[in-house]
Amino acid sequence: MRTLIPYTPRHPKSRLGELLSGRERRAFARTMLEDVLRAVRDADGDPVVLTTERVPDLEATQHVDDRPLSEAVNAALAPPMAVVMADLALATPESLRRAFEAVGDVVVVPGRGGGTNVLVVRHDDFAVDYHGNSLGDHRAITAAAGLHLEEIDSFRLAFDVDEPDDLGEVLLHGDGSAPDWLRAHDVHLHVTDGRVGVTRSSE
Amino acid sequence: MRTLIPYTPRHPKSRLGELLSGRERRAFARTMLEDVLRAVRDADGDPVVLTTERVPDLEATQHVDDRPLSEAVNAALAPPMAVVMADLALATPESLRRAFEAVGDVVVVPGRGGGTNVLVVRHDDFAVDYHGNSLGDHRAITAAAGLHLEEIDSFRLAFDVDEPDDLGEVLLHGDGSAPDWLRAHDVHLHVTDGRVGVTRSSE
Repeated sequence: MRTLIPYTPRHPKSRLGELLSGRERRAFARTMLEDVLRAVRDADGDPVVLTTERVPDLEATQHVDDRPLSEAVNAALAPPMAVVMADLALATPESLRRAFEAVGDVVVVPGRGGGTNVLVVRHDDFAVDYHGNSLGDHRAITAAAGLHLEEIDSFRLAFDVDEPDDLGEVLLHGDGSAPDWLRAHDVHLHVTDGRVGVTRSSE
Repeated sequence: MRTLIPYTPRHPKSRLGELLSGRERRAFARTMLEDVLRAVRDADGDPVVLTTERVPDLEATQHVDDRPLSEAVNAALAPPMAVVMADLALATPESLRRAFEAVGDVVVVPGRGGGTNVLVVRHDDFAVDYHGNSLGDHRAITAAAGLHLEEIDSFRLAFDVDEPDDLGEVLLHGDGSAPDWLRAHDVHLHVTDGRVGVTRSSE
């Protein structure tokens, strides 16, 4: 399955700013990207990084397009094709394979907050719209075009990294390089009152 | 599949206190319980509410045990049996059926924060331990007993309700009575800066 992985190398993951510096956030975003690339390949996917600017020293095909996300994806979309977000730090080959192998004109994996974290498009009459509640929009677009939409229920693919607390889930459930990167940068699990969060300290 | 649903009618969901009164939290916890009961039955499960005190006017078999959670569950556990948490507000019959039908001496659905949201136990040599990082403990207990552990990747079952922001996911993804209850109590989706949260107001 040819798979677009949209990526923004500049100023990624600003909401992690209370924990990581700008340089660290760029390094961590790239670590997550490389984990996603590996998981896509291990699921027999053929990844293309759709990036707003060229990423140096990346072992992957790159397609540079600095337009807004939906425009750039629609311009590159050539069904059958998948679109997988670059910050799915818990993605595994098994979870991606479920999405790639699901039957439907369009397959979506709903994300937290109404996002569309993984999309498989097999029909030319579909275009993406990632703005706002993209899951609701993608359901509506599919219905309007009379296409069959299949939804896949996966925690590993529903989870993306936005907030500092999300790093706790990466440390708990991740099995790529991202949890190693966090530990090497002194980000540790911190459990208080039943809540999982993170602290940064050289323990 | 016989299914224990642990429940605490008194002082539930204290972390929702900034949004809902004590009385409202009890009503909302019960609404989620009834959604879970319905989903378990629709997945051909046979539910028993394992409650710390009798729940009035509940159309379900109740087993009262006021000991701490793990003790009460272990005392009632008679494999083959499932244990499903009462606050899985996004649970559907389909997601539960995946867990019930999975092959393994022990089947777990990992939850956010290292929890064990659904458990299917088919072997007498297993006992639960819900304290702390229960997922890690359940993996260790299974390995020590030489049992086969199967893990199910499901967002709908990985998600439980703890924090006010979690109510946003219930409003977005829920299809039981819980989202209706929230809307009837003026809890609405609120999206700022890409984050989904909730506000309470009679709009």
